[in-house]
Amino acid sequence: MASEGDKLWGGRFVGGTDPIMEALNSSMAYDQRLSEVDIRGSMAYAKALEKSGILTKGDLEKILSGLEKELIGDVAGKLHTGRSRNDQVVTDLRLYMRNSCSVLSAHLLQFIKTLVERAAAETDVIFPGYTHLQRAQPIRWSHFLLSHAVAFTRDSERLGEVRRRINVLPLGSGAVAGNPLGIDREFLRKELDFASISLNSMDATSERDFVVEFLFFASLLMIHLSKMAEDLIIYSTKEFGFVTLSDAYSTGSSLMPQKKNPDSLELIRSKAGRVFGRCSGMMMILKGLPSTYNKDLQEDKEAVFDVIDTLSSVLQVATGVISTLQIHKENMEKALSPDMLATDLALYLVRKGMPFRQAHAASGKAVHLAETKGIAINQLTVEDMKSISPLFGTDVSQVWDYANSVEQYTTPGGTSKSSVMVQIEQLRELLRRQKDLF
Amino acid sequence: MASEGDKLWGGRFVGGTDPIMEALNSSMAYDQRLSEVDIRGSMAYAKALEKSGILTKGDLEKILSGLEKELIGDVAGKLHTGRSRNDQVVTDLRLYMRNSCSVLSAHLLQFIKTLVERAAAETDVIFPGYTHLQRAQPIRWSHFLLSHAVAFTRDSERLGEVRRRINVLPLGSGAVAGNPLGIDREFLRKELDFASISLNSMDATSERDFVVEFLFFASLLMIHLSKMAEDLIIYSTKEFGFVTLSDAYSTGSSLMPQKKNPDSLELIRSKAGRVFGRCSGMMMILKGLPSTYNKDLQEDKEAVFDVIDTLSSVLQVATGVISTLQIHKENMEKALSPDMLATDLALYLVRKGMPFRQAHAASGKAVHLAETKGIAINQLTVEDMKSISPLFGTDVSQVWDYANSVEQYTTPGGTSKSSVMVQIEQLRELLRRQKDLF
Amino acid sequence: MASEGDKLWGGRFVGGTDPIMEALNSSMAYDQRLSEVDIRGSMAYAKALEKSGILTKGDLEKILSGLEKELIGDVAGKLHTGRSRNDQVVTDLRLYMRNSCSVLSAHLLQFIKTLVERAAAETDVIFPGYTHLQRAQPIRWSHFLLSHAVAFTRDSERLGEVRRRINVLPLGSGAVAGNPLGIDREFLRKELDFASISLNSMDATSERDFVVEFLFFASLLMIHLSKMAEDLIIYSTKEFGFVTLSDAYSTGSSLMPQKKNPDSLELIRSKAGRVFGRCSGMMMILKGLPSTYNKDLQEDKEAVFDVIDTLSSVLQVATGVISTLQIHKENMEKALSPDMLATDLALYLVRKGMPFRQAHAASGKAVHLAETKGIAINQLTVEDMKSISPLFGTDVSQVWDYANSVEQYTTPGGTSKSSVMVQIEQLRELLRRQKDLF
Amino acid sequence: MASEGDKLWGGRFVGGTDPIMEALNSSMAYDQRLSEVDIRGSMAYAKALEKSGILTKGDLEKILSGLEKELIGDVAGKLHTGRSRNDQVVTDLRLYMRNSCSVLSAHLLQFIKTLVERAAAETDVIFPGYTHLQRAQPIRWSHFLLSHAVAFTRDSERLGEVRRRINVLPLGSGAVAGNPLGIDREFLRKELDFASISLNSMDATSERDFVVEFLFFASLLMIHLSKMAEDLIIYSTKEFGFVTLSDAYSTGSSLMPQKKNPDSLELIRSKAGRVFGRCSGMMMILKGLPSTYNKDLQEDKEAVFDVIDTLSSVLQVATGVISTLQIHKENMEKALSPDMLATDLALYLVRKGMPFRQAHAASGKAVHLAETKGIAINQLTVEDMKSISPLFGTDVSQVWDYANSVEQYTTPGGTSKSSVMVQIEQLRELLRRQKDLF
Repeated sequence: MASEGDKLWGGRFVGGTDPIMEALNSSMAYDQRLSEVDIRGSMAYAKALEKSGILTKGDLEKILSGLEKELIGDVAGKLHTGRSRNDQVVTDLRLYMRNSCSVLSAHLLQFIKTLVERAAAETDVIFPGYTHLQRAQPIRWSHFLLSHAVAFTRDSERLGEVRRRINVLPLGSGAVAGNPLGIDREFLRKELDFASISLNSMDATSERDFVVEFLFFASLLMIHLSKMAEDLIIYSTKEFGFVTLSDAYSTGSSLMPQKKNPDSLELIRSKAGRVFGRCSGMMMILKGLPSTYNKDLQEDKEAVFDVIDTLSSVLQVATGVISTLQIHKENMEKALSPDMLATDLALYLVRKGMPFRQAHAASGKAVHLAETKGIAINQLTVEDMKSISPLFGTDVSQVWDYANSVEQYTTPGGTSKSSVMVQIEQLRELLRRQKDLF
Repeated sequence: MASEGDKLWGGRFVGGTDPIMEALNSSMAYDQRLSEVDIRGSMAYAKALEKSGILTKGDLEKILSGLEKELIGDVAGKLHTGRSRNDQVVTDLRLYMRNSCSVLSAHLLQFIKTLVERAAAETDVIFPGYTHLQRAQPIRWSHFLLSHAVAFTRDSERLGEVRRRINVLPLGSGAVAGNPLGIDREFLRKELDFASISLNSMDATSERDFVVEFLFFASLLMIHLSKMAEDLIIYSTKEFGFVTLSDAYSTGSSLMPQKKNPDSLELIRSKAGRVFGRCSGMMMILKGLPSTYNKDLQEDKEAVFDVIDTLSSVLQVATGVISTLQIHKENMEKALSPDMLATDLALYLVRKGMPFRQAHAASGKAVHLAETKGIAINQLTVEDMKSISPLFGTDVSQVWDYANSVEQYTTPGGTSKSSVMVQIEQLRELLRRQKDLF
Repeated sequence: MASEGDKLWGGRFVGGTDPIMEALNSSMAYDQRLSEVDIRGSMAYAKALEKSGILTKGDLEKILSGLEKELIGDVAGKLHTGRSRNDQVVTDLRLYMRNSCSVLSAHLLQFIKTLVERAAAETDVIFPGYTHLQRAQPIRWSHFLLSHAVAFTRDSERLGEVRRRINVLPLGSGAVAGNPLGIDREFLRKELDFASISLNSMDATSERDFVVEFLFFASLLMIHLSKMAEDLIIYSTKEFGFVTLSDAYSTGSSLMPQKKNPDSLELIRSKAGRVFGRCSGMMMILKGLPSTYNKDLQEDKEAVFDVIDTLSSVLQVATGVISTLQIHKENMEKALSPDMLATDLALYLVRKGMPFRQAHAASGKAVHLAETKGIAINQLTVEDMKSISPLFGTDVSQVWDYANSVEQYTTPGGTSKSSVMVQIEQLRELLRRQKDLF
Repeated sequence: MASEGDKLWGGRFVGGTDPIMEALNSSMAYDQRLSEVDIRGSMAYAKALEKSGILTKGDLEKILSGLEKELIGDVAGKLHTGRSRNDQVVTDLRLYMRNSCSVLSAHLLQFIKTLVERAAAETDVIFPGYTHLQRAQPIRWSHFLLSHAVAFTRDSERLGEVRRRINVLPLGSGAVAGNPLGIDREFLRKELDFASISLNSMDATSERDFVVEFLFFASLLMIHLSKMAEDLIIYSTKEFGFVTLSDAYSTGSSLMPQKKNPDSLELIRSKAGRVFGRCSGMMMILKGLPSTYNKDLQEDKEAVFDVIDTLSSVLQVATGVISTLQIHKENMEKALSPDMLATDLALYLVRKGMPFRQAHAASGKAVHLAETKGIAINQLTVEDMKSISPLFGTDVSQVWDYANSVEQYTTPGGTSKSSVMVQIEQLRELLRRQKDLF
């Protein structure tokens, strides 16, 4: 236990402290992770103190070289002039998170790129699109991959916005009232490469919007990943059989020798809960807290570090999963069933002049009739069909073609080949633009 | 209970439905609130269908006039061609939320303006700044008001970003595969005044990022309001006595005749929990859900409507509270105590050449000595002071002036008059810019 | 807007109130739902006031008959003597929730019973047991139903515990200090049929543990229901094909005539998020709140009522789903594959003396060999098997029998017929006991 | 990286694994903390295997002595016969948590005892009771301490219930279907000292109710602690001045030499958010998960360990805070103001025959009159009083006595000395009973 004299506030206190309280109070574990950015922040502050005349040139040199060696002598006590733990640590955290945003952005863009390029390579694979997990309409496998990629581009956009709000300098706010030494905050901003400076010292030392926003960005990103994981877990069941995970992302069973479990995807899904827990915990901490710094805020760092580490691992694992995933085209095709073309059957009637609502009902009757007869809908005879609507003719047979079906969806965002290619180009362009931002 | 025939999917089903299931499944209550935007969306879609040749000019006229009267005849069945509930309802929700963003933005900007203009009117009031709820340093009352105003400008900024992601057209995505009728989505976009169109039909029909983001924006705004409420609840206690709420925002007690309770502020604080509950509930709903539309998503509307209504009330009440709040300058001044100038005392020594850390310790000893003697720190004699450090001289008496103290904090974001005036101008300019955005 | 004179605290206030504040502050909508229990509580309190000599017998009679007619005259003002809104309303809420617990318990027990009796009726159906959604070992369909039933019995147990903590009388606690009129709280307890009386007036008027506990019980129950829903949604896909929901619990598609969607199960799953949102919202409201009554607590009622209504609907719908669910034995049997007996193959070697870890590896090699040869594991020749371990003999063919496999699991909790029958009896007995508790 | 051969499922897999996936997948850090209970569970299982004839007496001896030394030879492979990681690890977790419950219960009971005994020692201190943070009625300081103690006894009761549901043996459930070796689970139960055995193997291996319940118990306990912390933070402001924290539980400021901050209380308050985050995160993980074991469940351990450590520290620190807290009787008395007796003034009129509602209004008028005159309510003349109601007489002076006021509240749960003494005795008795439970 550190002796009282080591504490900055050594002058006034007289009693000892409870060691359990010491441990609870300690931020040492997290401070260590911030030490590099803390030194950077301290160097900038020392320079500003010298500009303000608080430090001599000699003092400054001693401090700068001392900070590098992490051993600073007598002059160390001067470094804290006009600076408080409140504006110091929040500056450190912003510097740290700004770096982390760049790393995470690179992982995220790489992951999106993997989805997009895989989509580009497999545009000819058609398989069932589901709604409510029930077979809905034939779609391209690429269309499915792109639907996830598009969601992740919104995460990337949000990360950029969060980064912008992280990238604000609080240093020079003191504890609550501001800095009384005429510190040049614009100089500090440039030294530390922030985009702007905070407007109000009371707000600057205690607001943690950028922390909560980051945790929320991470939670929503994880929710998107959990959705993709859920899809792939289902597609990798024996019953669906659409995909097989690489062994590198699977695990066996200690009891059952035949098992190959999609553990990577389950871990990704579970981390959505973990990250959300960090986000909701931090929100509860802030709710109802009075203004300015309260020790409650110390919880911010552990949450941030845990989420940064989690995202970093999860994004890389997700990239590995997607890039090594094996798909089973034949199973995908086998899963296409003629009833999935019931909408096309209705549209056939629409094209012959029937209002869609009636056409929908007529097609529904055809589905029902086939079920009753125990046959596939495309095995109904023309007479069967005519009993439902006289508009049916022999040309109805054209409806039963999955490749033709998907090619109808040429409007932007649709599943036709041309539309999918446009999506790929849009995403490539977007990736190029976002890469330039960081 | 509606007869089966009324249902769009009437053709296939044969059994009846459980009335409790019907009620659970029903979205009628929420659909009603969307009816106006739904008509607008349907009109645009009808026009697009006519452009695509699905509707004749006559059909279109009937539909347009029918939608206005809310009674549409035979031709109604054609309106649903190529459109699904999935792309229809999410378009409605986006239209509705876009309108709500404008209303909420106006309330929010009005509230910020009230804080800023009140701050501008009361720059000369000095009172204690607290950290950890302990008296820290003298600050301007305006500086306190502005610290909240600044936080709310970040909410306003976030609302703008959320609105941008709301303002994307999903119509023309069908159920999952897209729209097979060559609908002109760019035409739809212009008709409905969206800024862009969705990239991928599977994503467009089921992503609810914009809902979750809105709920999160609202949660963080409410957390800021809860912080302000907490401050004012504490300041309105008899013990602090800094402010008195207008009777319009207070309530009495059914039992205790003397009571005047800050119910408005407590309600504001509690709504932070309510809104967060909606946000976290929606996030849990989305977590682990597979791709595309699942009925789980139906929960979105009730959450959104509740949060819009809550924010709208709370922002107006908060504006009322701030604009009618009575402040008690004399109590604020009485609460300033000489020990709050201990930092200034340390800076006095710094200016005489002592490193800050030693100066901090020396000032702490002075605080301790005064406590031991049972007097205020500014009542220590020069001899007392010299016993702590020989650097103390008779000029130390200049330290004990609250007005001088605050005027030291001239760096941007500080509590000096000039710095506060700059903050006010920055916020006024920011309000002007944000008002133009919506 | 009510005139000031109507308010209980009419004497002191002078200003008007903001109508938006009035609306935000109003509890009328929720008070109405409590009116019946409020009258019951008021009657008991009136009797106690008469016992204490505050009311005459005549006063009492007027109040009792007046409360029944909901019109009480001059004497009404006496009813509030020594009682505050704080102890009155929390008494009402406890009375209301106690009744609701009984209703919900009945629905829950009925639901469990449905699971158990269905399990009893279908003990001979064998299908794949999954872990990680991968086929693991053959199990009885009944074993699966019972696994859910068992989880719900814990919910029932928890409901009983929550009810016990609801069933405590707070009336007679006044606003904060207690009741100054010597009210007989034991008499009140008996009149209102509470099990015990609260220990401390400050705690009694403001603690909402019973609310949060109820919301948590509901959240965990909903999580169990969401798990069952997830299973059945997956089992009702075309690819699994194990179950078909009754039309009464399915919905069609407005676009795709062939669709039959498990909307009931998706709604159940989504309500887990909704209820959790209410729980987490209420927890955030309570966090950091100071002692005794604060207006924040008013949020309790809306959360409680919403969750009661949700649970009531959801439990009844879930009961309907299970009792009308159609199962497809043939598809279940088809889904059993010989590799699911790999554990049995390892146990075959264990019985011949090989340590399990080696047997597991040997069985794994057999799985791999069969995969390499593109055949089912039970189609490997004895020679193939011997190449892996000399312990394999011709008797290995006995392993490949699903019915034999499940019958091995005779230990309590296992999937053999006898073990399943024991589980059914245990659950029936437990249902009998729990039915008696309410 | 471990070589493939070390893995239990070594037989089948052929590829390598991604090191980031390995790290994400690894449970080593948590397994270590479970190693002691894991050995205990393994010993019991080895004995049961010997009873079932799977192990010889010699095998058993080797395993038992090997487990103690943590080095087990060839025979080790036999230990896993019929046991899976699924039933093994959940057994470990239950054993671990059962032990932790005992430790936490001891800390919690010690904390409650500290509150109760402090209350017993300071029954004569009277200070303001607040509602809505506004002065309400005079109460005893002990009454306030007991209000918190009572809340914590409910936590203790809940911990007992959670422990009961933890104390159920899952071992012998295998991976999903049960145990095929006729393992004697009743024997295992006795060996491991569980109260009962799980009913169904599918439920037993994957249900985490006991984890979520524990996390919820912890969250509600923390919310109670955050409430107490909030009270004491406010009471320790200069403005209230009711209490001073021991230096052992305070921290100074790096910038402001006079500061003494209640960091211990702020940390306690913040941990409510942290623990809630763990609880809500785990609930999200479970929501919508399909039956039986999924790797998502691996998140359970880190959450549980973190919460155990947090509670353990926080309870001890809270005990330290309460036992060393200094109270300032004179400030407490000074804070009592005559308007807090307005309810007593109304009761004075009630005793003279006026219905309470009118009496409340009359007392309110007196408060208002005094405010208008700028004097304390007890300084109004009898004539002033009579102008409000002719029932006022000279005997009204008896009302203005705080000690008399509190002594009116003799009903159970009230703030009179006798009632407070009864509460103390009830809590002492309750502590004795709960101590016996663990």
